[in-house]
Amino acid sequence: MDGRKGTRTGEVMDAIRRRMAGGTLSPGERLPSIRRFATAMGVSPSTVVEAYDRLAAEGVIRSRPGSGFYASGGMPPLALADAEPRLDRAIDPLWVSRQSLDAGDDTLKPGCGWLPADWMPNAAIRRAIRQLARAGDALLADYGGTRGSPALRRLLARQFADEGIDAGPDQILLTGSGTQAIDLICRFLLRPGDTVLVDDPCYFNFQALLRAHRVRIVGVPYRSTGPDTVLFAEALARHRPRLYITNSALHNPTGATPSPQTIHRLLTEAAAHDLTIVEDDIFADFEPEPSPRLAALDGLARVIRIGSFSKTLSASIRCGYIAARPDWVEALVDLQVATAFGGPSPVAADIVLTALGDGSHRKHLEALRRRLARARRETADRLHALGLRPWLMPRGGFYLWCSLPDGFQGGSQGGFPGDAAAELARAALHDKVVLAPGNVFSVSQTASGFLRFNVAQMADPRVYEVLARAIAR
Amino acid sequence: MDGRKGTRTGEVMDAIRRRMAGGTLSPGERLPSIRRFATAMGVSPSTVVEAYDRLAAEGVIRSRPGSGFYASGGMPPLALADAEPRLDRAIDPLWVSRQSLDAGDDTLKPGCGWLPADWMPNAAIRRAIRQLARAGDALLADYGGTRGSPALRRLLARQFADEGIDAGPDQILLTGSGTQAIDLICRFLLRPGDTVLVDDPCYFNFQALLRAHRVRIVGVPYRSTGPDTVLFAEALARHRPRLYITNSALHNPTGATPSPQTIHRLLTEAAAHDLTIVEDDIFADFEPEPSPRLAALDGLARVIRIGSFSKTLSASIRCGYIAARPDWVEALVDLQVATAFGGPSPVAADIVLTALGDGSHRKHLEALRRRLARARRETADRLHALGLRPWLMPRGGFYLWCSLPDGFQGGSQGGFPGDAAAELARAALHDKVVLAPGNVFSVSQTASGFLRFNVAQMADPRVYEVLARAIAR
Repeated sequence: MDGRKGTRTGEVMDAIRRRMAGGTLSPGERLPSIRRFATAMGVSPSTVVEAYDRLAAEGVIRSRPGSGFYASGGMPPLALADAEPRLDRAIDPLWVSRQSLDAGDDTLKPGCGWLPADWMPNAAIRRAIRQLARAGDALLADYGGTRGSPALRRLLARQFADEGIDAGPDQILLTGSGTQAIDLICRFLLRPGDTVLVDDPCYFNFQALLRAHRVRIVGVPYRSTGPDTVLFAEALARHRPRLYITNSALHNPTGATPSPQTIHRLLTEAAAHDLTIVEDDIFADFEPEPSPRLAALDGLARVIRIGSFSKTLSASIRCGYIAARPDWVEALVDLQVATAFGGPSPVAADIVLTALGDGSHRKHLEALRRRLARARRETADRLHALGLRPWLMPRGGFYLWCSLPDGFQGGSQGGFPGDAAAELARAALHDKVVLAPGNVFSVSQTASGFLRFNVAQMADPRVYEVLARAIAR
Repeated sequence: MDGRKGTRTGEVMDAIRRRMAGGTLSPGERLPSIRRFATAMGVSPSTVVEAYDRLAAEGVIRSRPGSGFYASGGMPPLALADAEPRLDRAIDPLWVSRQSLDAGDDTLKPGCGWLPADWMPNAAIRRAIRQLARAGDALLADYGGTRGSPALRRLLARQFADEGIDAGPDQILLTGSGTQAIDLICRFLLRPGDTVLVDDPCYFNFQALLRAHRVRIVGVPYRSTGPDTVLFAEALARHRPRLYITNSALHNPTGATPSPQTIHRLLTEAAAHDLTIVEDDIFADFEPEPSPRLAALDGLARVIRIGSFSKTLSASIRCGYIAARPDWVEALVDLQVATAFGGPSPVAADIVLTALGDGSHRKHLEALRRRLARARRETADRLHALGLRPWLMPRGGFYLWCSLPDGFQGGSQGGFPGDAAAELARAALHDKVVLAPGNVFSVSQTASGFLRFNVAQMADPRVYEVLARAIAR
């Protein structure tokens, strides 16, 4: 789109929105005619047409053929973000996902949340796919059962048993992805207007997902030992949240792991306030030694454990899971049939099952942890040279949550009004580097002095060149 | 993997399994050291390492870092109940799905909504999977782009153009399934308390899905030429629905196809009342000749077209799509990232793309249509002998919507209080035959005199025996 025209269209849209907000244009009332409003605004009629069309697309106004445009009475369609494409898109909780997922091959992604493709166990995946090609007709052609592959659920049940979580295969539901696991739980437990607790900072997509559920999001400040338990207790008493969503091991974005005391306190408070907790255990494979789990201490009474295989096996073979109370799983099965007609592709679950059972898998994970430990140290050193300092040194995983150099810490120093990290991310994006600015993770918008780095995505020196240039501006 | 080495690994695994089965290696006991066992078995230590790793992946043994491998504490619980659908479950819009999806191999499913596995193009699917095993790392390991495979979207755009629907690849969004396509649209357009129109009868899962969105469902009586246009117009005026969900070709459950006049009238009324329509085109491949489409007449202005590949390619390879206005697609992309972190597995989309492009595909579809026409005639004849009569003879597809024999038509005749078809279905389920009773399709619950049959699932004479016995009761 032409930038100038885009700006003018935006001005016309804003003018209409202001009239509606101010009450000079009431629901059901006809909008000014295109010609008249074009003259009034000093723009071309085509600009007004486009503005009206876009407002109609947002549901703010409605078009009645042959009769013109009218202010809507009801709610607009659910737009999670303003739909500006590509580079000038607002930096919101969807920004990193959209920029990273749709980036071209020439774009570097130190802000993304996955390993480079050549770090993944592709040989084992290829073996699993070749085995799949020899499977029977039923596996290749049919819908699977409603809970998903029994063999994969049995394998997960055995893994959980090793971690002290006693969940039979019937208590496990395979889902289309880890995100879909959380989404299904939200559908099951939440009503619009409910309150949900998340960590501040937390994985940005928790916020995007919760917005889609039209719930109120309350953040609990996150410390190096996990969520602040005093503020957690206060938030429970004050906001009566229905749900708390967290990572217990290798928290995203900080890489921290809650202490045993924190885990115990969280569960005690949750019991006192009848709070349900979703424990997203997606980074479990990256831990050098297992850490305490909410689900293990709680025994899947009020904790729901979810996870997926996207981080250490394949993100292309979509498959997640839920482990929860049997009666909840039964209800979640119905909900998944109604809204998706099942969970993951049965063929995807089969590839996951075969690859997890591949003799090479344990060694792959060990090598991966060593490689990440090395990359973590090297990246921390190189970022340090640029004045970027890790908030803490994680025990595992691929994230480093780093504070910006002095002068960028506050909201408006260093010539960057507003959000320092967001401005750095915007500048880097023009140089084809996707960063993850702190505030996309922060409900309270208090992380403008932070960036999250993925140490596995920082081998290319251009990352550091672009960072240095953006910082020096 | 080296074939000989693979065999040796298997021998080592078998040796351990024999020791455990014979009791010479008890649960919790340490396994022989790798070096010792390699000598004993006359294999290399690496073969033993691989055997132990695979047994650990199977859960037969456990690894304790720094200490070796130990026999697991007995076999994991075998949850036989997980394959067994609950017989006493209430007959609601989810009943047919749950009973069909979780049915054991000994259950016949004339009520289900899919073809038998051996009617599907499995050879082409196997070729596509073998090709996938040779794909690059990025396809096997990475999340895909947010809209899904560009090549598959281009192929769909070309198909749509053939049908007179002008939609660029950017107007197409791949989804995890056809159901997820509708679900995403509902999330985008609906608020709790909104009203949605469906056909009466309609695909039962539309009702289950809409219940999950907490909207009011209003049914429009369905005639042999499509929805009753007079009652459709009345419903629009009276209920102001936000959305109408329908199949335009080979309607589920009746197999009817709306007339061109009906299609035109629906669109005229929709325009007058600013109604959005979801056209679920999942049975398109079964049409002998294309019929008029809402999306083609409307040009994707207020019609959203959705579909999937589950009926003619594979239901195991989950992939659906949405074609809609560009601005709506942009918002739907955000919503899909937030709630599922993307659409179908990229590997699933790749298998679909390859299989659709397989030289055999067109011939497969032609043969399938002929085979279904034959099965339709034969099934109608055999049902007729039992007093079950098709409401109409569909042009294609696998459904026959049949009225029950005289004496079962009303609500409480023939000794069946309440719902005659539901009672037949319940009786048949005890004989391991899943039927689809009329009222699971009917918002107004006025179809107790009907059953929907799937002519492709009725080759086994037991279906007719069980039907005859249930009717004679």
